[in-house]
Amino acid sequence: MQISRPTLLLDEKKCKANIKMMADKAKKTGVVLRPHFKTHQSHEIGRWFRAQGVTKCTVSSIRMASYFAADGWEDITVAFPTNVLEINEINRLASVCKLNLAFVSPEAVRKLKAGLVRPVQCVIEIDTGYHRTGVAPDDFKLIDSILAELKDSLVAFKGFFCHSGQSYNDRSKEAILKTYRETSDQMKSIANHYREAFPALELSMGDTPTCSVSADFEGIHELRPGNFVFFDITQRVIGSCTNDDIAIAMACPVVAVYPERNEIIVHGGGVHFSKDTLKREDGKVVFGEAVRLNDHGWDAQLLPIYAKSLSQEHGILYAPDSEIGKYKVGDVLGILPVHSCLTADAMGEYRTLDGKLIDMMPKAS
Amino acid sequence: MQISRPTLLLDEKKCKANIKMMADKAKKTGVVLRPHFKTHQSHEIGRWFRAQGVTKCTVSSIRMASYFAADGWEDITVAFPTNVLEINEINRLASVCKLNLAFVSPEAVRKLKAGLVRPVQCVIEIDTGYHRTGVAPDDFKLIDSILAELKDSLVAFKGFFCHSGQSYNDRSKEAILKTYRETSDQMKSIANHYREAFPALELSMGDTPTCSVSADFEGIHELRPGNFVFFDITQRVIGSCTNDDIAIAMACPVVAVYPERNEIIVHGGGVHFSKDTLKREDGKVVFGEAVRLNDHGWDAQLLPIYAKSLSQEHGILYAPDSEIGKYKVGDVLGILPVHSCLTADAMGEYRTLDGKLIDMMPKAS
Repeated sequence: MQISRPTLLLDEKKCKANIKMMADKAKKTGVVLRPHFKTHQSHEIGRWFRAQGVTKCTVSSIRMASYFAADGWEDITVAFPTNVLEINEINRLASVCKLNLAFVSPEAVRKLKAGLVRPVQCVIEIDTGYHRTGVAPDDFKLIDSILAELKDSLVAFKGFFCHSGQSYNDRSKEAILKTYRETSDQMKSIANHYREAFPALELSMGDTPTCSVSADFEGIHELRPGNFVFFDITQRVIGSCTNDDIAIAMACPVVAVYPERNEIIVHGGGVHFSKDTLKREDGKVVFGEAVRLNDHGWDAQLLPIYAKSLSQEHGILYAPDSEIGKYKVGDVLGILPVHSCLTADAMGEYRTLDGKLIDMMPKAS
Repeated sequence: MQISRPTLLLDEKKCKANIKMMADKAKKTGVVLRPHFKTHQSHEIGRWFRAQGVTKCTVSSIRMASYFAADGWEDITVAFPTNVLEINEINRLASVCKLNLAFVSPEAVRKLKAGLVRPVQCVIEIDTGYHRTGVAPDDFKLIDSILAELKDSLVAFKGFFCHSGQSYNDRSKEAILKTYRETSDQMKSIANHYREAFPALELSMGDTPTCSVSADFEGIHELRPGNFVFFDITQRVIGSCTNDDIAIAMACPVVAVYPERNEIIVHGGGVHFSKDTLKREDGKVVFGEAVRLNDHGWDAQLLPIYAKSLSQEHGILYAPDSEIGKYKVGDVLGILPVHSCLTADAMGEYRTLDGKLIDMMPKAS
């Protein structure tokens, strides 16, 4: 493939294998897969999930719900505390799909109800230890106050969900499984408390580490992982995947080489990767890791080259003495991203290995 | 104005005042202003510069050069080491505008020449201390080798340029002026060396701190600052501007409040701000600082509230006890960005205070 500028390559085969892996696991373990589409933000890739029998999805904003509803998704969970200011779009969406909205306070329910003209469903977020948003698992008073607000409203209670983001601090399969057990136990305990009043209540969990590693989701109704569609080097360090599972890589033209300071400068910066960093197994903080591009994508083996810093358009790569002499202006290096969700969002489109462009939800309105 | 989701507000009046400030300074000091358009990436805002008599611009990629050439810019410098793989677009652009390309090695000139069919101009980047790209100021051998490659080619030598990015480490006007003197002295020394052979050679400098603070550019031909069009809280901490000069703010809906841990959760995360951080005067590392929105934009006075972390869509704000009780779900807070260039790039459009949408270079091809 002819690369002339920073290009987000998508290995369709690896991506579809990741999708199939999670869809198969869901079928085998008897849970519903409601994948988080904030990672890929793409109609086309959404259809690859549909081809695996997936009919429900998760998004992180009302705008993203509208984008996927426009491509025929009819059951969408917005896994973000409901922004009551978007009432108009919520009403419109609720007329075209089954819309599940997240709540963490009775205030948000009260404000939403005031303007709601279509039925929606409520999922209550439980904070199982990540401490970003959600109700504490033992705060039955707060849960009860949310449930009380739902009474005689267009908002029907559907169940509880959590995002165990603390799994991103884990660094082994064993640690991830421990996080899964701790968080799923909290969820099941809440369900036990409310099962009598709400026999049909559902429990939903979702984060790529626990969903990738766990093989048993007993007592859980639904999984909402997102990142696994591409994975990234952060997921490898956590223990969710191998380098070979990573389905996207940025192709970056080499524009300068500084052997005296072991640096290769590529076109590929913060506007391409975004700026998340990863503390690797060896303690180094990196913005991406280099791979050699080949005729079929990129080599499975990492190069001993990594992005040590990024400015808006520049990527500054460290290359050891043994490597620095091999690269020259006009070459193209592949860089595996630290955080595939933010990198995809920053790029706005993918290019498959056979050169096809895949578009994403546009940034602008 | 009705805000329902994260919206990048642009105070047109402040922005135009920033543009006029720099255009007036350039006129007064007898230098050419060739502003860097990577910050705003917008045809409309480019026209605001044109209204101040600016006819030349700087960009950070060939793609961005094409975007601005399409709006009538006829003299464009790409201040990024030339990516020789973009030869086709370079040839096309060189037929519609005066194109100035940056070089840091003879290899890039050699490779470009091989495919070049239209005349372009060469500016050689000098590394005056930032150590990202550029030729060391005393490396006459390397400069000579680049100049030798230009002979009998379609690439004409125009002059030297630098980006004194080390000024971003300064924390006072005095420190910035010192950086300016040190870097401009290096540039003038190189010019002295080459003036006899190239009597028309030009010196170009550019970074918002030195261009904002210095009032005298004797011996320098051209300035290329970019960020000053909006400024941001990083520039305030450096000493380039006051909070009142900052021309953009993100309007972020409040979606949850956690008084017990002094946190307000807003819709506004890494996909909106990008993820640069700032170590403030008080030592706190922040992702943005909050202001109260009002009918005419936002208050000059900062609130004692700041973004302490961001995930993809969530902004986690710290609010002290004295403030936390004032905010509730459905309110909208303004957040001044850490790095306006990356925030604008992440958002893809602006909304002026009278509700007009201003578009930007699209992300996708």
